[in-house]
Amino acid sequence: MASSGKLWGGRFVGAVDPIMEKFNASIAYDRQLWEVDVQGSKAYSRGLEKAGLLTKAEMAQILQGLDKVAEEWAQGTFKLNPNDEDIHTANERRLKELIGETAGKLHTGRSRNDQVVTDLRLWMRRTCSTLSALLWELIRTMVDRAEAERDVLFPGYTHLQRAQPIRWSHWILSHAVALTRDSERLLEVQKRINVLPLGSGAIAGNPLGVDRELLRAELNFGAITLNSMDATSERDFVAEFLFWASLCMTHLSRMAEDLILYGTKEFGFVQLSDAYSTGSSLMPQKKNPDSLELIRSKAGRVFGRCAGLLMTLKGLPSTYNKDLQEDKEAVFEVSDTMSAVLQVATGVISTLQIHRENMAQALSPDMLATDLAYYLVRKGMPFRQAHEASGKAVFMAETKGVALNQLSLQELQTISPLFSGDVSRVWDYGHSVEQYGALGGTARSSVDWQIGQVRALLRAQQA
Amino acid sequence: MASSGKLWGGRFVGAVDPIMEKFNASIAYDRQLWEVDVQGSKAYSRGLEKAGLLTKAEMAQILQGLDKVAEEWAQGTFKLNPNDEDIHTANERRLKELIGETAGKLHTGRSRNDQVVTDLRLWMRRTCSTLSALLWELIRTMVDRAEAERDVLFPGYTHLQRAQPIRWSHWILSHAVALTRDSERLLEVQKRINVLPLGSGAIAGNPLGVDRELLRAELNFGAITLNSMDATSERDFVAEFLFWASLCMTHLSRMAEDLILYGTKEFGFVQLSDAYSTGSSLMPQKKNPDSLELIRSKAGRVFGRCAGLLMTLKGLPSTYNKDLQEDKEAVFEVSDTMSAVLQVATGVISTLQIHRENMAQALSPDMLATDLAYYLVRKGMPFRQAHEASGKAVFMAETKGVALNQLSLQELQTISPLFSGDVSRVWDYGHSVEQYGALGGTARSSVDWQIGQVRALLRAQQA
Amino acid sequence: MASSGKLWGGRFVGAVDPIMEKFNASIAYDRQLWEVDVQGSKAYSRGLEKAGLLTKAEMAQILQGLDKVAEEWAQGTFKLNPNDEDIHTANERRLKELIGETAGKLHTGRSRNDQVVTDLRLWMRRTCSTLSALLWELIRTMVDRAEAERDVLFPGYTHLQRAQPIRWSHWILSHAVALTRDSERLLEVQKRINVLPLGSGAIAGNPLGVDRELLRAELNFGAITLNSMDATSERDFVAEFLFWASLCMTHLSRMAEDLILYGTKEFGFVQLSDAYSTGSSLMPQKKNPDSLELIRSKAGRVFGRCAGLLMTLKGLPSTYNKDLQEDKEAVFEVSDTMSAVLQVATGVISTLQIHRENMAQALSPDMLATDLAYYLVRKGMPFRQAHEASGKAVFMAETKGVALNQLSLQELQTISPLFSGDVSRVWDYGHSVEQYGALGGTARSSVDWQIGQVRALLRAQQA
Amino acid sequence: MASSGKLWGGRFVGAVDPIMEKFNASIAYDRQLWEVDVQGSKAYSRGLEKAGLLTKAEMAQILQGLDKVAEEWAQGTFKLNPNDEDIHTANERRLKELIGETAGKLHTGRSRNDQVVTDLRLWMRRTCSTLSALLWELIRTMVDRAEAERDVLFPGYTHLQRAQPIRWSHWILSHAVALTRDSERLLEVQKRINVLPLGSGAIAGNPLGVDRELLRAELNFGAITLNSMDATSERDFVAEFLFWASLCMTHLSRMAEDLILYGTKEFGFVQLSDAYSTGSSLMPQKKNPDSLELIRSKAGRVFGRCAGLLMTLKGLPSTYNKDLQEDKEAVFEVSDTMSAVLQVATGVISTLQIHRENMAQALSPDMLATDLAYYLVRKGMPFRQAHEASGKAVFMAETKGVALNQLSLQELQTISPLFSGDVSRVWDYGHSVEQYGALGGTARSSVDWQIGQVRALLRAQQA
Repeated sequence: MASSGKLWGGRFVGAVDPIMEKFNASIAYDRQLWEVDVQGSKAYSRGLEKAGLLTKAEMAQILQGLDKVAEEWAQGTFKLNPNDEDIHTANERRLKELIGETAGKLHTGRSRNDQVVTDLRLWMRRTCSTLSALLWELIRTMVDRAEAERDVLFPGYTHLQRAQPIRWSHWILSHAVALTRDSERLLEVQKRINVLPLGSGAIAGNPLGVDRELLRAELNFGAITLNSMDATSERDFVAEFLFWASLCMTHLSRMAEDLILYGTKEFGFVQLSDAYSTGSSLMPQKKNPDSLELIRSKAGRVFGRCAGLLMTLKGLPSTYNKDLQEDKEAVFEVSDTMSAVLQVATGVISTLQIHRENMAQALSPDMLATDLAYYLVRKGMPFRQAHEASGKAVFMAETKGVALNQLSLQELQTISPLFSGDVSRVWDYGHSVEQYGALGGTARSSVDWQIGQVRALLRAQQA
Repeated sequence: MASSGKLWGGRFVGAVDPIMEKFNASIAYDRQLWEVDVQGSKAYSRGLEKAGLLTKAEMAQILQGLDKVAEEWAQGTFKLNPNDEDIHTANERRLKELIGETAGKLHTGRSRNDQVVTDLRLWMRRTCSTLSALLWELIRTMVDRAEAERDVLFPGYTHLQRAQPIRWSHWILSHAVALTRDSERLLEVQKRINVLPLGSGAIAGNPLGVDRELLRAELNFGAITLNSMDATSERDFVAEFLFWASLCMTHLSRMAEDLILYGTKEFGFVQLSDAYSTGSSLMPQKKNPDSLELIRSKAGRVFGRCAGLLMTLKGLPSTYNKDLQEDKEAVFEVSDTMSAVLQVATGVISTLQIHRENMAQALSPDMLATDLAYYLVRKGMPFRQAHEASGKAVFMAETKGVALNQLSLQELQTISPLFSGDVSRVWDYGHSVEQYGALGGTARSSVDWQIGQVRALLRAQQA
Repeated sequence: MASSGKLWGGRFVGAVDPIMEKFNASIAYDRQLWEVDVQGSKAYSRGLEKAGLLTKAEMAQILQGLDKVAEEWAQGTFKLNPNDEDIHTANERRLKELIGETAGKLHTGRSRNDQVVTDLRLWMRRTCSTLSALLWELIRTMVDRAEAERDVLFPGYTHLQRAQPIRWSHWILSHAVALTRDSERLLEVQKRINVLPLGSGAIAGNPLGVDRELLRAELNFGAITLNSMDATSERDFVAEFLFWASLCMTHLSRMAEDLILYGTKEFGFVQLSDAYSTGSSLMPQKKNPDSLELIRSKAGRVFGRCAGLLMTLKGLPSTYNKDLQEDKEAVFEVSDTMSAVLQVATGVISTLQIHRENMAQALSPDMLATDLAYYLVRKGMPFRQAHEASGKAVFMAETKGVALNQLSLQELQTISPLFSGDVSRVWDYGHSVEQYGALGGTARSSVDWQIGQVRALLRAQQA
Repeated sequence: MASSGKLWGGRFVGAVDPIMEKFNASIAYDRQLWEVDVQGSKAYSRGLEKAGLLTKAEMAQILQGLDKVAEEWAQGTFKLNPNDEDIHTANERRLKELIGETAGKLHTGRSRNDQVVTDLRLWMRRTCSTLSALLWELIRTMVDRAEAERDVLFPGYTHLQRAQPIRWSHWILSHAVALTRDSERLLEVQKRINVLPLGSGAIAGNPLGVDRELLRAELNFGAITLNSMDATSERDFVAEFLFWASLCMTHLSRMAEDLILYGTKEFGFVQLSDAYSTGSSLMPQKKNPDSLELIRSKAGRVFGRCAGLLMTLKGLPSTYNKDLQEDKEAVFEVSDTMSAVLQVATGVISTLQIHRENMAQALSPDMLATDLAYYLVRKGMPFRQAHEASGKAVFMAETKGVALNQLSLQELQTISPLFSGDVSRVWDYGHSVEQYGALGGTARSSVDWQIGQVRALLRAQQA
């Protein structure tokens, strides 16, 4: 029985398939956890000391050794061995080289199962803070822009058909408001990430009197997990994070889709900065919105990771199964993607040019047909009749080949005698938007209220 | 120009493809919204009255008419017309039949876009409460059972391999604790559902001075939406609900998977009640765990709805697009599924028989190998060496073809001189589990603590 | 021991949970299988007769009884009993009422497991033929239109930016060609559906000498399944069908997306027939492309069913598990959706109006920048230099605020001396498209070739 | 206007966001395409020469230069520049360094759009062949094993409940047969991959008379794409490949699930080789089936890639959009995963030990209850009655606490007078399986037939 030096040593005989070894190893990606792995081990060694399983001197030796391990990683001098199949093995192996047999006491009562999930939670907690800051940077940029360009009007679309005149700021805020919900959800996910599983062992818990409250305080977790079987195998927080990212990406993809449309020759409302466009290898005249297309495409990729993890989780019996190893690559990739996407989106929004004249020219009198109906409503006609009357006016204008505001008063009066000279006030776009003064609408006061509401959320977030 | 009687009347000419009509109509499923549609319209008519768009008498007439509409639905006497393409058209059409032209004032300043999403939120708010109650009924059943069967031990598995002895209650609680997270998440989703979009119109907001705070109070929403473009087209709350259900189903599927395994002849730990089993059309001896298999299968179906909606949302530009009509069938189907699954799961858990003797017999001395290592740790050996020593003992026992606890003290001492007579205490399963006294572990005190924690959550929920 | 009258009779005691009963029952949807269930049973009774397990008289009695059952379904007179949990139970129960105890011989050696999958394959085989015909009806409509409008030019877009002038027919054909791949795939799926599982029993096969070749011939299957365990539990053909539909819907969704864009005021290239549009409940001037939006949305729904089934299948051990009951609702819903979508798409394409003048006006000289580069290439300049030179011309025109074709020869010659008077020929859109004469390009000859290729596929399909 | 040296040179002004640059670049992964990119460019230069756009000398210079580029990649000496954003830019940049301005002629009439999809198809065509060989290596291993262990009986399960005795080979073949369908599907996907898009340009086709038939023949494609707009933007073949992998992984996951169960202490039928197991960091006695769990988990990951790509494709308008850049990472990752999984699965199957005695002991008389019913059928009783009678016998045995075969003849006769002394033959497992002689069943002859069928497919594949 050769001792192979692997953690589970002592028992295995027989050769190993090199493809299996590579298939099994996670060091290629979980090395990202080096810092939190050291952090977790330091806390655990304090727990062992308090439980009497380490002397103060042993603890000091371990802490110092771990600091040295961290230093090697930070300085890029850590050398991986071929047998370092994961970051935990690597760090423990190196610790032993540095401080000798005492290193063998660090894993007392700890399992890979509670260790890896503790590391992942520490890593994700920090990542959530980073992403939250990037998300708010984007929201802030949007709100600043909304405030600055509050007086620009352009067409609002539903079903991609011109619907009613709105403020450009109203459009910006519609996306910013969606992102505030993402921020709210991210905090909730982070709250559930911020729960300590360490001290759960492999399945049954910790048998050596380790004080989990001490571990929690050392690692600054908000709470401790309730059940050791659940703690070592549940990945709700991973699934939630991936879904959070999927939904956030859906918002960014929809915003990107709008901007791609608004940036076409046909709409002509916006122009991307060169920094966020790319040319064509064949067509010299083209400037393509690659940044926006990539944002749009990443929504699929991120969702794919969410779907993949859920399918993997769904097929498992309870407690730890090796299938769970899939969690980390998903989290790492999605975190990187979110970070890039949020920064690129901020860059796009902050450098985008708008073409006010095109926006103004795109407003057309037929977009005021609803206002025409309201005109009649204000004169006492029930809305359904007013809607029908306005529809008749639209039809009449189309048939005559003129714009809606070019129907004469006489012509309008063939539709309803309620029309009188003051109908001309309807045809003013600025007047139109100012009607929408209920909270959430497109009147200036309402847009200001929205800006105030989002700014208040931002302040609350920073507090 | 024939007035076809459709809501958008007045303008359309040309025939309609009957397949398109059916494709477009939603009445087959959105009729479920009849009650909340009436509720929303009643609140809106109060808003119109306050805004001076309805007289008190008109409002009273509308309210009375709407009550009559609701009564017809409740009594099953509401007659649908072929032109009633959705519940909103149907209710408004009927209202007009009942009270005449005044009905035409109800839709003033309101759009189908804000109306339908208000209805859906009202419906889902109620559904979440129902599902929450069913979820807690299941959790309560599990905790009661965990308390009653606290002294039953059986094998804990990781990787489906026997790992360590645990309490049966510890297993039950591992699933109950997962469900408490679902409860927490459901509350968060419900909070975001409970926001009023009414008063957002089609896109630009409400132009007639309707007081959205009044609408909010009338309908008992917790807040109002911030931006009318977002309010009419965002379906985050639907996506979140479907994801909530997907994750909850993943938990129930994993529990079902465990119970299916534990109910095999080979494990023999549990037996489903006949009420939740089915026989075979070919094999008379069989009793199949159909209830558990169906629970397991529904996880796929529910996730499919979540994935489908996300894909639909992802591809949209902002504001309302007809694609959003897909939201309702997804919500209705998933709600029905969750309701049935939670009730069946409660029935299964409350009627399940356990085979204590089989559970006891499945415990084997090799499951105490970790405890054997801890024995050496307590004698001062670093854990890594102790783990290796215990591994050698396992190998020795396997080689000799005896159980681990049948190795003689002499044999053990060839592995380590630290073994002495008191090693015999290791071989007691009851003693083993009691070691795991850290919070979350499988010791009796820890299991009691878990029960207390979940009960406290239940009380907080009911408060 | 009460005999409950259920198929597995004889053994079960204890009450049944009504929610569980409903959860378990499939009759609400699998009644659609009535015809193929009778068809399968008729074939099986012939197999039993040949194996000597039925006399000719018994077989005749059963065949007659089954015909009567089918007649009742066809005429809408079949009465379901509360205990008819699925179509197989219902039909066998009714057969027994009609012909007495002989009915009890029909299930000899047959299991619900091989029966249900035989029924489903028969049903899907027929459905695939129907969908194939509808798909080709759509393709034929597209090709006819492409041929008729072959001389209409409009902008081709990449990245939604105007790229190069193309034929409108080239656009139509780009979608038709994608659909021919769907047709090819559907045939492959149908081939794998068309394999007989009957005679596989529950798991081990058929023990009574039933001749599966006879069953195959009776039911006109193309082959028989190879392994009874696999035959009763594999649902590859369902997953493939759902994926086929998902990919086909992706094509239709992308076409719908194009048409929605082309139908905006801003693009103005096409106008939907009123039969496929809908008005707005609030905005009288609007005509929304609901048909196209619904097509687009169904892509999500169909994919959701595919994802859901795959997740369910993925988590199963081999052989029949009740989870597989989820297959049928997915297949039925997706089949209905595909049928409606294909017909609506055909209606949309055949009634769509195009605005030739808008199409022509949307062509602009900068779309010929590539051709300008080719002009230089033809004069001997390497393409990379020519691309750069053409880019400079674009930049110069932009800087001067003129169209690209309004740069003077002198100005062009500051960029390259290779420009001469014949450069004026570049600015002809008709000349431009005719350059693209390689197979698959947008020249008239190449478009004609494409039409010929698709027509040939259609003929091959009908042969 | 600074010429930045990028391919689209000539026009762009303004700085670039470094995050955007990294977000946009694909060289980190598409460098894998180096060989096929060179291959495609060599063919294209031959096409240019035939079209008169290159002289023979220029072509020779380019071919030589490209060979040199390939050599550098093969030898690991190719140096990437910071501006090499993708493999195509890198190779063309290097070619220019090697041969000068002539390199600028290579891209004449070619676009990145048709170039990249040609490269990807070439790469995937080769990968499909590799995966096909690995898949058949696995199938062959399974069939060899099935033949060698043909006489081992063990329980067949449905619903994870013991159902009927079957041959172990029958189980192996049930999975092998599923994989033969994967092989069939892979060939179909490969056929659709094997179609040449080169010569489609960016959207409109090739304007310079390049002979696409020549390109097809040079690159050994089976056909050419029909429409240039479709050719440059359709990724059906990618979606199909990812779905192929997802379905194949579902099969391997189900097989892994079975083996994990069979490898539990409770089932005890199989034991994984040490080479495919892993120990526990905490529990010395454990040997975990990591290889099988990883196979199982990869099914989720692969499906996630498929779902992600479909979501990305679904939301696009037609023709090339940058979103399509997502295709390559998905393909590369899934190819690597499939390669590893197929090899590990082959290793697992070829080294797995089976425990025949445990398999034999797991057979129990109640599994013959169906045979008992058939016994009565053969005596003339209708199957439904026989099934009920057998069910009564099972109930009687359970009630008396004896095995089914321990009921006395007298006891059996209280259930039916048709029971006589020859009933004892029913209780022979070997006799039981031999009844299932219909094609596809578990009798020895039928298992041999299955082996023959799969071997024939293998031979056809190799032909």
